[in-house]
Amino acid sequence: MFSHETQVRVRYGETDQMGYVYYGDYAEYFEVGRVEALRSLGFPYRRLEEEGVMLPVRDLHTTYHHPARYDDLLTIRTTIVGLPTVRIVFGYEVRNVEGVLLCEASTTLVFVDRSTMRPRRAPEPLVAALAALRSVQG
Amino acid sequence: MFSHETQVRVRYGETDQMGYVYYGDYAEYFEVGRVEALRSLGFPYRRLEEEGVMLPVRDLHTTYHHPARYDDLLTIRTTIVGLPTVRIVFGYEVRNVEGVLLCEASTTLVFVDRSTMRPRRAPEPLVAALAALRSVQG
Amino acid sequence: MFSHETQVRVRYGETDQMGYVYYGDYAEYFEVGRVEALRSLGFPYRRLEEEGVMLPVRDLHTTYHHPARYDDLLTIRTTIVGLPTVRIVFGYEVRNVEGVLLCEASTTLVFVDRSTMRPRRAPEPLVAALAALRSVQG
Amino acid sequence: MFSHETQVRVRYGETDQMGYVYYGDYAEYFEVGRVEALRSLGFPYRRLEEEGVMLPVRDLHTTYHHPARYDDLLTIRTTIVGLPTVRIVFGYEVRNVEGVLLCEASTTLVFVDRSTMRPRRAPEPLVAALAALRSVQG
Repeated sequence: MFSHETQVRVRYGETDQMGYVYYGDYAEYFEVGRVEALRSLGFPYRRLEEEGVMLPVRDLHTTYHHPARYDDLLTIRTTIVGLPTVRIVFGYEVRNVEGVLLCEASTTLVFVDRSTMRPRRAPEPLVAALAALRSVQG
Repeated sequence: MFSHETQVRVRYGETDQMGYVYYGDYAEYFEVGRVEALRSLGFPYRRLEEEGVMLPVRDLHTTYHHPARYDDLLTIRTTIVGLPTVRIVFGYEVRNVEGVLLCEASTTLVFVDRSTMRPRRAPEPLVAALAALRSVQG
Repeated sequence: MFSHETQVRVRYGETDQMGYVYYGDYAEYFEVGRVEALRSLGFPYRRLEEEGVMLPVRDLHTTYHHPARYDDLLTIRTTIVGLPTVRIVFGYEVRNVEGVLLCEASTTLVFVDRSTMRPRRAPEPLVAALAALRSVQG
Repeated sequence: MFSHETQVRVRYGETDQMGYVYYGDYAEYFEVGRVEALRSLGFPYRRLEEEGVMLPVRDLHTTYHHPARYDDLLTIRTTIVGLPTVRIVFGYEVRNVEGVLLCEASTTLVFVDRSTMRPRRAPEPLVAALAALRSVQG
């Protein structure tokens, strides 16, 4: 399975009065994770949209193990689970600089054709790139 | 099971360039839903915190069926699933004014004693209030 | 001058670890204030956009007097300053339930034609509605 | 005057349905700018808070020249205007990769003693560091 790491630093506006990152703000971190994973494969999400492919989120599952705090430098490890069809599944692990696992999540996104607003298959070059990585690893 | 309805109107800042409510912003709607559900039972969350009880979120599961859009008046139906122990489980259904189910979710929150930062049981009056409602409904 | 009041309740996700509403989140409150002011005049902003008129913000000036806190029920008094031309100026006062002035702000927005992306004059019916209110008050 | 540059990449959740960065989300970019400016001087904001110094924002003035868009890599140039007293003034310029000035802003923040919640003077080492830089540049 393809995986990719990126980092985000917790902003003050993302904390809440408990002194933790607000539970809803992790969704943006996961977005950063999957966008950078796709970029590293040569598929910037901005270009996908310009080519008429949208990727709305179908589901989100998050488990919060330990709180992230202000100014923490978080590492998001994003994994693409399986080969994309009309759907693509991303897994996420968020760790702080001590390596503590703070949060795990997964999201399913659906490929949608912007002109028809109907589901469509994943762009073939993206599937091919992931399949090639897989056979190399296999 | 106890359930309660409240409404939120979608703000412009909650939309994204797809023209939909950003998937991460629903977490705030669920927060509004559970806070108003607790308030309607006589337990404003602000007071819980002032009395030393924190309620961090342990997990979040969301399924997005249809997009919410700018200025939509959304109804959030919040259900308290079972009787709280050291945990409390909320379920959510988000509908637009046509009654279309846009999104379903559930969250588990943990009661934490702020002085020790250890899990603790739910405040007894809250459990009693929910148990009383249950027996009435039963 | 036309003015209109609306209320918002502070959400947990809008607080920061200082225990105050994050300074950046007031912009959404001002947005709610001006959108509800326009709606009360018969010009929902959603309809303006559907009719091809966009209203990007040109400037924002905010002075923070006292912090708003979690669960505060805030009253936003929104004033439309002068008659709109290619610009419209809104003033805002945010107060808590004790009537304490927490925050004052103003924003200038520009009417833009979505087909040409060029500035354009305010819709005539909106100007007429504001002018009529003004002469009544005068 | 001391100035410092840092970069942020626009997240999807920061766009709105106009396809622009929401006007309220720039406040987080300015926060990143000033926090990284202070860090580069040896004064991480997290440490200031741990030492009992809070820095609430007193005012914010923003002028939006051109929209930032999804995935733009923005450069925030943050300037500390003058020497801090009980207040510190930051100026900001946000540019895209083509160097176009998208947005200018300034904020005034107040040094507050967390134990008394009263204004206090800026920490002397911070003033000294800025004064030293100034004399070098002069």
